[in-house]
Amino acid sequence: MTTRVGIFGYGNLGRGIECAVNAAADMELVAVFTRRDPKALKIATAGVTVASVNDVASYKDKIDVMILCGGSATDLPKQTPELAKLFNVIDSFDTHAKIPEHFKNVDENAKANSHIALISAGWDPGMFSLNRLYANCVLPNGKDYTFWGKGVSQGHSDAIRRIKGVKDARQYTCPVQAALDAVRSGSNPELTTRQKHTRLCYVVLEDGADAAYVENEIKTMPNYFADYDTTVNFISQEELNKNHAGIPHGGFVIRSGATGVNNEHKHIIEYSLKLDSNPEFTASVIVAYTRAIARLHKEGVNGCKTVFDIAPAYLSPLSGEELRKNML
Amino acid sequence: MTTRVGIFGYGNLGRGIECAVNAAADMELVAVFTRRDPKALKIATAGVTVASVNDVASYKDKIDVMILCGGSATDLPKQTPELAKLFNVIDSFDTHAKIPEHFKNVDENAKANSHIALISAGWDPGMFSLNRLYANCVLPNGKDYTFWGKGVSQGHSDAIRRIKGVKDARQYTCPVQAALDAVRSGSNPELTTRQKHTRLCYVVLEDGADAAYVENEIKTMPNYFADYDTTVNFISQEELNKNHAGIPHGGFVIRSGATGVNNEHKHIIEYSLKLDSNPEFTASVIVAYTRAIARLHKEGVNGCKTVFDIAPAYLSPLSGEELRKNML
Repeated sequence: MTTRVGIFGYGNLGRGIECAVNAAADMELVAVFTRRDPKALKIATAGVTVASVNDVASYKDKIDVMILCGGSATDLPKQTPELAKLFNVIDSFDTHAKIPEHFKNVDENAKANSHIALISAGWDPGMFSLNRLYANCVLPNGKDYTFWGKGVSQGHSDAIRRIKGVKDARQYTCPVQAALDAVRSGSNPELTTRQKHTRLCYVVLEDGADAAYVENEIKTMPNYFADYDTTVNFISQEELNKNHAGIPHGGFVIRSGATGVNNEHKHIIEYSLKLDSNPEFTASVIVAYTRAIARLHKEGVNGCKTVFDIAPAYLSPLSGEELRKNML
Repeated sequence: MTTRVGIFGYGNLGRGIECAVNAAADMELVAVFTRRDPKALKIATAGVTVASVNDVASYKDKIDVMILCGGSATDLPKQTPELAKLFNVIDSFDTHAKIPEHFKNVDENAKANSHIALISAGWDPGMFSLNRLYANCVLPNGKDYTFWGKGVSQGHSDAIRRIKGVKDARQYTCPVQAALDAVRSGSNPELTTRQKHTRLCYVVLEDGADAAYVENEIKTMPNYFADYDTTVNFISQEELNKNHAGIPHGGFVIRSGATGVNNEHKHIIEYSLKLDSNPEFTASVIVAYTRAIARLHKEGVNGCKTVFDIAPAYLSPLSGEELRKNML
């Protein structure tokens, strides 16, 4: 079975999806939809249609799953419920606090139109969520820890760029090694925000800008930096472009728990990711779940799902027999 | 919903199941079945029936899921298919090469009697299998590595004990740090058996035994030790009892893969376990899947399953709404 895929939005994530779909023998990229002038958009794959988002309805019967690649702040809360009327849809909505509301909106429209939808695919939410869930079920008596990084935070980089005198910036979130070690020891420490992560900033100043002012503005910024130990390095645009052009990320989900008549046996479950490209890895997760929902839709399953609701075998192109033989 | 559970076999695993079931608010331990004289078997939980395996059929309507705690060599290949005629069943069958045959035998009897069964729950097979599957689906272009330890191998300890002059022994399987580091670097090394694991043995000799003979017999034993760098330490029974009484284990599942137009971005997915008690952790996994199959049976699902076939949400006592709010 070939799954016919559409990409809705062509930024970093959309390009990652394009790569991952092209690498999958059982998927076919039908069209990329853009808000820009379709004629002006050049995509990586030869022979694939580039269409305007305004024409998406005409692809209703040509696409099995539409993959939404917009942002969680303003795009996805509108687009995913809207497109769920026309297509099976999948997104990477990552505003954790608003997931219940987003789920409800998508679920209603998907069910009303006999479509399946999957929201919040990626790695956090996504693979990290799965690992939190499995580890909690297996070790009910325990404590969860999630660490992020070392990796680029786009939101924090943007916040620095809004400061007067800043030309460009890149912010890395870094887990604190001592905190990781303490968690892995099984001592179940209580950790403050400051103890878990540090923030490392590379900043390019505009000509004549006041470095001391910029550094103070960064380090005292509420929510973003004030609660963290923050290091600010001023570098040239050339150096930023040369050494900080990538979008690496990763992190750790650890559960530390105990079993036994008197909880005398300790156990550590740890899942970690070390990613050269955050958007390409996110895209790879989404494409695996695209395969899953295409199959489930053929089985007649409708409504909104998350990674929690999908049996892992649905992600694989291999048969149950092959999986049991080679991976169990 | 309360799941009524039976334990079939009361060794290390059975005792671990008893602990895990007692810790679960939604489970009730109904009876423990033994091949020994039930009157002679004292279990940890007050007020729970101890019955003979010969009387198991009379519990047909009193138990929702029977948890099989026998060994994979001779017990489970017979017991799981047989008991699947009477009950929903779950086991931790771990002879990887014979899983397809075991699956078929269990599936036929479970389906013919409208029962659900789940085989090969635990951590390998089990949690490690899940992580191999997820990582393969997310990074199709990559390479898998599984390391075990540091942990006690019962089979290798037994093999040492069969050597003439050996009174007692404990064998630890240890991953080689340099191999782990090479895998984590993303270099996708080809590793031989010797390069991945070492074997560490603690041996108690009988009075007058020939230490050099025993050491040579261990180090040259085909399949078990000949392909590994093996260290043999002779210690007293007291020291063995004091320092090597536990059954720790663990290991690492790592997938190293690449994405991008030219596979230019590398990614490492790593899952690891560090377990004080191998049987209690195995039991904890089994009990989570016991909850899952009890629910699926209520939904009318029959036949043999593995961890690959179970959506993760079924493992949790929490509702879908709670899971989306707190763990996604």
